[in-house]
Amino acid sequence: MFGKYLDRVREAAPLIHNITNYVTVNDVANILLACGASPIMADDPNEVEDITSICAGLNINIGTLNSHTVPSMLLAGRTAVRLGHPVLLDPVGAGASSYRTETAQRLLEEIGPDVIRGNISEIRTLTVNQAGASRGVDASLTDAVTEEGLREAVDFMRDQAERLHCVLVVTGAIDLVADGQTCYCIRNGRPEMGKITGTGCQLSGLMTAFLAANPEHKTEAAAAAVAVMGLAGEIGWDRMEPGDGNATYRNRIIDAVYHMKGTALDRGAKIEIYAPR
Amino acid sequence: MFGKYLDRVREAAPLIHNITNYVTVNDVANILLACGASPIMADDPNEVEDITSICAGLNINIGTLNSHTVPSMLLAGRTAVRLGHPVLLDPVGAGASSYRTETAQRLLEEIGPDVIRGNISEIRTLTVNQAGASRGVDASLTDAVTEEGLREAVDFMRDQAERLHCVLVVTGAIDLVADGQTCYCIRNGRPEMGKITGTGCQLSGLMTAFLAANPEHKTEAAAAAVAVMGLAGEIGWDRMEPGDGNATYRNRIIDAVYHMKGTALDRGAKIEIYAPR
Amino acid sequence: MFGKYLDRVREAAPLIHNITNYVTVNDVANILLACGASPIMADDPNEVEDITSICAGLNINIGTLNSHTVPSMLLAGRTAVRLGHPVLLDPVGAGASSYRTETAQRLLEEIGPDVIRGNISEIRTLTVNQAGASRGVDASLTDAVTEEGLREAVDFMRDQAERLHCVLVVTGAIDLVADGQTCYCIRNGRPEMGKITGTGCQLSGLMTAFLAANPEHKTEAAAAAVAVMGLAGEIGWDRMEPGDGNATYRNRIIDAVYHMKGTALDRGAKIEIYAPR
Repeated sequence: MFGKYLDRVREAAPLIHNITNYVTVNDVANILLACGASPIMADDPNEVEDITSICAGLNINIGTLNSHTVPSMLLAGRTAVRLGHPVLLDPVGAGASSYRTETAQRLLEEIGPDVIRGNISEIRTLTVNQAGASRGVDASLTDAVTEEGLREAVDFMRDQAERLHCVLVVTGAIDLVADGQTCYCIRNGRPEMGKITGTGCQLSGLMTAFLAANPEHKTEAAAAAVAVMGLAGEIGWDRMEPGDGNATYRNRIIDAVYHMKGTALDRGAKIEIYAPR
Repeated sequence: MFGKYLDRVREAAPLIHNITNYVTVNDVANILLACGASPIMADDPNEVEDITSICAGLNINIGTLNSHTVPSMLLAGRTAVRLGHPVLLDPVGAGASSYRTETAQRLLEEIGPDVIRGNISEIRTLTVNQAGASRGVDASLTDAVTEEGLREAVDFMRDQAERLHCVLVVTGAIDLVADGQTCYCIRNGRPEMGKITGTGCQLSGLMTAFLAANPEHKTEAAAAAVAVMGLAGEIGWDRMEPGDGNATYRNRIIDAVYHMKGTALDRGAKIEIYAPR
Repeated sequence: MFGKYLDRVREAAPLIHNITNYVTVNDVANILLACGASPIMADDPNEVEDITSICAGLNINIGTLNSHTVPSMLLAGRTAVRLGHPVLLDPVGAGASSYRTETAQRLLEEIGPDVIRGNISEIRTLTVNQAGASRGVDASLTDAVTEEGLREAVDFMRDQAERLHCVLVVTGAIDLVADGQTCYCIRNGRPEMGKITGTGCQLSGLMTAFLAANPEHKTEAAAAAVAVMGLAGEIGWDRMEPGDGNATYRNRIIDAVYHMKGTALDRGAKIEIYAPR
């Protein structure tokens, strides 16, 4: 069912504009190429409007936030919204510094991204810890999405997605992708992926390509991207040899995306749907 | 015949100053080490003159152009020219934004690089799409250098190289390296190299080392670098195992450069010469 | 004996703040994850105090120094010192430009790092080539630490460590880790590690994690980190297959750190102690 969203990325070959951190940028570029998309990285205010205009989607990642690129993020974000291009916000490290939290909040309010993808701590920072978000406090995300707390987490995600008018994605041991109505729960992936820098950043890049190629089905496209990343983590792990560690695993995951077809995703995706309320 | 230029790089072990993008910079550094050269990356106006002075060549790449490094590019470029060090310009993304196009044009005019290396779109932007370049419009590069249009492309490249007083390099399915008189046509490489981010950036770094080590034979040195990169792409591909994708291929190409000797290049290079007019 | 310092890193899982260059930053992040620590990269003056406050150690690397991050380095460094967090300075390229030399000297004076790690050229620049360091000139480091000059180098390192009130680490064919009293001489590693960009940067990141997890034994923790990196270089080399080169070797070294246990370090470390004077 979700394989078609991957196939559509390979057919559309969208060009994706990334304003992202310098730590994991190379892996983001290679995973975009692996899924059939093309990356452009550009973060100077003098050119981000031009660049985002020729692209099909915009990926904003605040991983190495600095005062010279925040104006670029705002400019590019507004341009993309005006042109109807999907915008994804990855609020890396929101909560770790006031500057990140405030910038993430500002990007959220001034751009209105189509999708926000983060880990639980980041998503909590942008939801329950914000003024005006008190409604969500009771049904809050705890430290991790667990089987026991899943139903509660699903409701929390749908509530917050509705409040923020976006698709909200939280990744961890269990991944959740929600809009105001529907929530997908994805159980692909491996814990060892957390020992590689930037698997989250890579997923955000990948997901932007899925949104750009499937603009009519944003929630499903985001869920498909989550499943692709997780399934690639499983396939890559199966190819690990004795002595291989996190550096090699990084390559094997991107390699697995490179070879993945829609049919393989249909077979391997572990996606559960929480139907519209 | 071209193997000696590679051997000379390993003997001279030139130190290369790179002002380049943060996407592919690590691979540029590793491919420079793989060919026997040494990389220095430095892009602050406070130090680029010092750094370029202790180096043997300068590689300028506008892949993640920003307003803080453009003055560094100009300063370093003028210093390198004054000292007689070869300068290569890689106009990444010229044509994708006004800022890139104008900056590339400005670097071209104010520095006068020894070599310009880009893909067809970038080279077109700096040649036929510029005012004053109308002479080249008729004999223009089309979307790709093809066997059918090769003779025309060769003439175009020689004309533009002469007009720009540089060695002009366009890479794609067929690679061309031209000065005003001679054009080399290189048929090494594999299409899958386009699925790795930064193979062009890597080639520009590698080529700068070849220019620095072979300053009396710039056109031939540039052609040799193109053949090394393409042959490494072929050798790396032969080492690919089932399941390997673009991330692993990236490593295998650099690994192949690491082991390549001049004799292997002589055997594997597919270089055709279009003799001086 | 030194294995316990590695085991302690895995137990403590320290969060390490890195202000480092954009060339090798991804490898620094992955090697920190490989040893059981976690990386944060943040270099904007607006947030470095917040970030360093939530971390257990600070790694300052001037590899791609620029005028926007020098204030961040100073701010973060002073904050870390005030909080009692270990600070490591990696003076990449000190001596290559006046700007780097002066900035490294300034960071040294205004922060007072716990550890300085560099190659011989960099350490010389910060010691014998500085005014006020004339006492060390006679017993200077020559171009490399050799078996013949080892005793002299050991004395030099201890003198300079005492003068600078820090642990001083010089890496090369033979590695030395000294405080004012004791000097450890480590003979792990392979010369081919010099053909990979950033093995020094990686070691600095790794070492900061060792300092953060073993704050009562800084000299020994630094020596243990040097041995881990060198031993990983040996283990990684043993896993090289025909055709593998520097790109693959890079991954294999990080992979080896990922799997290394304290017991393996105890078996493989080649550490000689020059007892307190």
